[in-house]
Amino acid sequence: MSSLPEPFLARLKSLFPAERCYLDVVDRYAYSYDNSRKIFLPDAVVFPLDAEEIRELILLCNEYGIPVTPRGRGTGTAGGSIPERGGVALSLERMRKILAVDAKNRVIVAEPGVLNQEVQEAAKPHGFFWPPDPSSSAYCSIGGNLATGAGGPHAVKYGTTRDHVLGLRAVTGKGDAIRAGCYTTKGVVGYDLTRLLIGSEGTLAVITEATLKLTPLPQATGGIAAHYRDAESCADAIIAIMSQSVTPSALEFLDEGSLNLIRSRHPGMLPENSKAMLMIEVDGAPSEIPEYCSAILAACGNSGMIDAERVSDAQALWSARRALSPLLRDIAPKKINEDIVVPVSRLPELLRGLEALSSEYGLANVNFGHAGNGNIHVNLLVDPDNGPEMGRAESCLGEIFDLVLAMDGTLSGEHGVGREKMPYVSREIDAVTMDLMKRIKAVFDPNGILNPGKLFP
Amino acid sequence: MSSLPEPFLARLKSLFPAERCYLDVVDRYAYSYDNSRKIFLPDAVVFPLDAEEIRELILLCNEYGIPVTPRGRGTGTAGGSIPERGGVALSLERMRKILAVDAKNRVIVAEPGVLNQEVQEAAKPHGFFWPPDPSSSAYCSIGGNLATGAGGPHAVKYGTTRDHVLGLRAVTGKGDAIRAGCYTTKGVVGYDLTRLLIGSEGTLAVITEATLKLTPLPQATGGIAAHYRDAESCADAIIAIMSQSVTPSALEFLDEGSLNLIRSRHPGMLPENSKAMLMIEVDGAPSEIPEYCSAILAACGNSGMIDAERVSDAQALWSARRALSPLLRDIAPKKINEDIVVPVSRLPELLRGLEALSSEYGLANVNFGHAGNGNIHVNLLVDPDNGPEMGRAESCLGEIFDLVLAMDGTLSGEHGVGREKMPYVSREIDAVTMDLMKRIKAVFDPNGILNPGKLFP
Repeated sequence: MSSLPEPFLARLKSLFPAERCYLDVVDRYAYSYDNSRKIFLPDAVVFPLDAEEIRELILLCNEYGIPVTPRGRGTGTAGGSIPERGGVALSLERMRKILAVDAKNRVIVAEPGVLNQEVQEAAKPHGFFWPPDPSSSAYCSIGGNLATGAGGPHAVKYGTTRDHVLGLRAVTGKGDAIRAGCYTTKGVVGYDLTRLLIGSEGTLAVITEATLKLTPLPQATGGIAAHYRDAESCADAIIAIMSQSVTPSALEFLDEGSLNLIRSRHPGMLPENSKAMLMIEVDGAPSEIPEYCSAILAACGNSGMIDAERVSDAQALWSARRALSPLLRDIAPKKINEDIVVPVSRLPELLRGLEALSSEYGLANVNFGHAGNGNIHVNLLVDPDNGPEMGRAESCLGEIFDLVLAMDGTLSGEHGVGREKMPYVSREIDAVTMDLMKRIKAVFDPNGILNPGKLFP
Repeated sequence: MSSLPEPFLARLKSLFPAERCYLDVVDRYAYSYDNSRKIFLPDAVVFPLDAEEIRELILLCNEYGIPVTPRGRGTGTAGGSIPERGGVALSLERMRKILAVDAKNRVIVAEPGVLNQEVQEAAKPHGFFWPPDPSSSAYCSIGGNLATGAGGPHAVKYGTTRDHVLGLRAVTGKGDAIRAGCYTTKGVVGYDLTRLLIGSEGTLAVITEATLKLTPLPQATGGIAAHYRDAESCADAIIAIMSQSVTPSALEFLDEGSLNLIRSRHPGMLPENSKAMLMIEVDGAPSEIPEYCSAILAACGNSGMIDAERVSDAQALWSARRALSPLLRDIAPKKINEDIVVPVSRLPELLRGLEALSSEYGLANVNFGHAGNGNIHVNLLVDPDNGPEMGRAESCLGEIFDLVLAMDGTLSGEHGVGREKMPYVSREIDAVTMDLMKRIKAVFDPNGILNPGKLFP
């Protein structure tokens, strides 16, 4: 049974009818985890339908000091939506109305529970899309995209969530309904609360409505696959590509481990001698694709290159790329997955460092990711039942993070801090800046009820 | 003489040598105004050379409760850099080192006093540029660009300042040296303090270093001039252009008053019967310019169009456009210049409304601006010595702002609030959100010494 105080429960039930307030442990279980695979059971799960219900819930939780953990679709890998300290899991999945599709102004207004893909489907008939494209786009919500500042392969050309939102409505941890930003593509009145909330992982406010800025759909795309004798040559090619003026719309790196995984599922798809690969996409008008491809192919070439060519069936390649994470889950269900970022010019050094650390600690690792942003997903393939291995993995992870920070990098490019990276945050953010962030948190959420135990150690 | 307390002055002099601390009224005068043309004399002007000097100054000013007003090059039109309450004018003009030009990572690191144009010149040899392009780019500083969230004609395609900054160093109003953001194009660790500071007009912190994200220079541009029988047809064309998939790199609107001004200086440059004009630029690879121009020309066409064609000498047109503001100053030195924004689809309605208000209040107005963002510079040509006219102008301005807000617009697209728009801010930002902003201000600047009297009524 839930451990919430009786008077609180009574008030909660008066706010939410039974079908929108789960108290049974079986019902609550599905809201106890996310893609970080940690499990913390909430005491209640509620499903508000509008901002006013959220405001009333938050006021109630403030009164009783009950934690509230906002939640989209639970696809995050950093544990940001896990109700670690119990209390109320606030699921936004039933707030899924698209409130406006305003193609003339290149705007969609949506509630937080709308899926990323639903936004794309609403935008497409008008010739537009919304650029953030995490690999979970078919089932993740825009509320979650906003909370984490989600990216994806196309961020190298189009940027991440923060670049594609004009305004927000939200309810703060104090219970104030606020409006951030505006409806137009320009606007500088007041502080930029929009971007303060984006990426704040539900620790400041619950987003109740978002005004999304749309981008014209590219008319055509071209795909290139490039293979290399070693990771170092591949990293050199990444630098060369990003130094010239044609910005690819995607530039994905796959290391030997990743290629071997794909080979295990798709025999014959990849050259046998390839030790590192780039999957590159360019987009634009049909007439410019050949020119863009030529520029990229020229930049790809170096003495370690085996082969680089335009691919006719880019879709097959992308499917293989998208399947990497699930494939890794198959062989190492509890893999440690990080999404570190380094400046593109430091990628060769990073890959060398990762190899050295992997061999020093006797850990298998698989690295792939959004190389055009220097954003590499490092996967340590560990067995959680193997105590010594887990100990080594923890030490190795610490060294990876130090390596990244020594190279002017960051601990997370798109997954966020959540609870998984919280122990490491103070290595990146100095004490003075961290203190300022905590004081900002206190302004939004003076009683600390909103997603406690996240972001800050 | 300065009215600062003696012990404060003694400490100030120990921090800054005489050549970097102006106390004489003649020297101080040049720091008493900006492009808003209001005059408030600071009691001292200091020129720090690094963040540590700024930190010490701010700690000292906190101790004595002396206002500090940070200042770039004083090109702002909203009065954000005016030391309205006296105290210390903190000029950043001598912090003008470019600390790194890192083309491999598409990054320039610069001190706040570096001029916008100096950034462009440093980026250009590597094939890059920094997109914010206010018309004062030759002499405004990036610190000022950051403080105001500056835009410019190219914002329609490239966005504004907030879209082109990776990280910042700053000293808060409390005297804390903080670091915001990171060095990479992706990063979601901690709150987005970078964008919280951008556009905060020096009320939260003094930016001491900026990591700027560069964009590849377009290889080619194409220009189009389109003329219309009336403003309404022209506005319809703007909507049509922004509804299709080729985003122009600039889309400038000029009304009849603007065209007459240009005609007075450049006889024969413009068709006699044109009552509204669009100056359009597209950019990209040389091969795609003709295609882009065709798409734009198709969207330009409607029954009110007189003529639309590619221009060979786009430079002459742009010079004419840039000369508009100075020309207006000639005929109305104290013109009231606003930079309102409405959703692009509401432009016809806005222009009708402006015309009606202008005739109702018997005021001449001239409107032009960045139509692709719905960002129109409304100029009321008033004579400040004509009391009744000034009274009518004030009423008219209030009605213009109400009209804009009723259309989901915003009071400022790129100039900021400063002191000029402060009386109107509460029409746009609701009381609850405003209170939150003020509490954020108090976190950064608990004693309210940083740029007091700005932003918030």
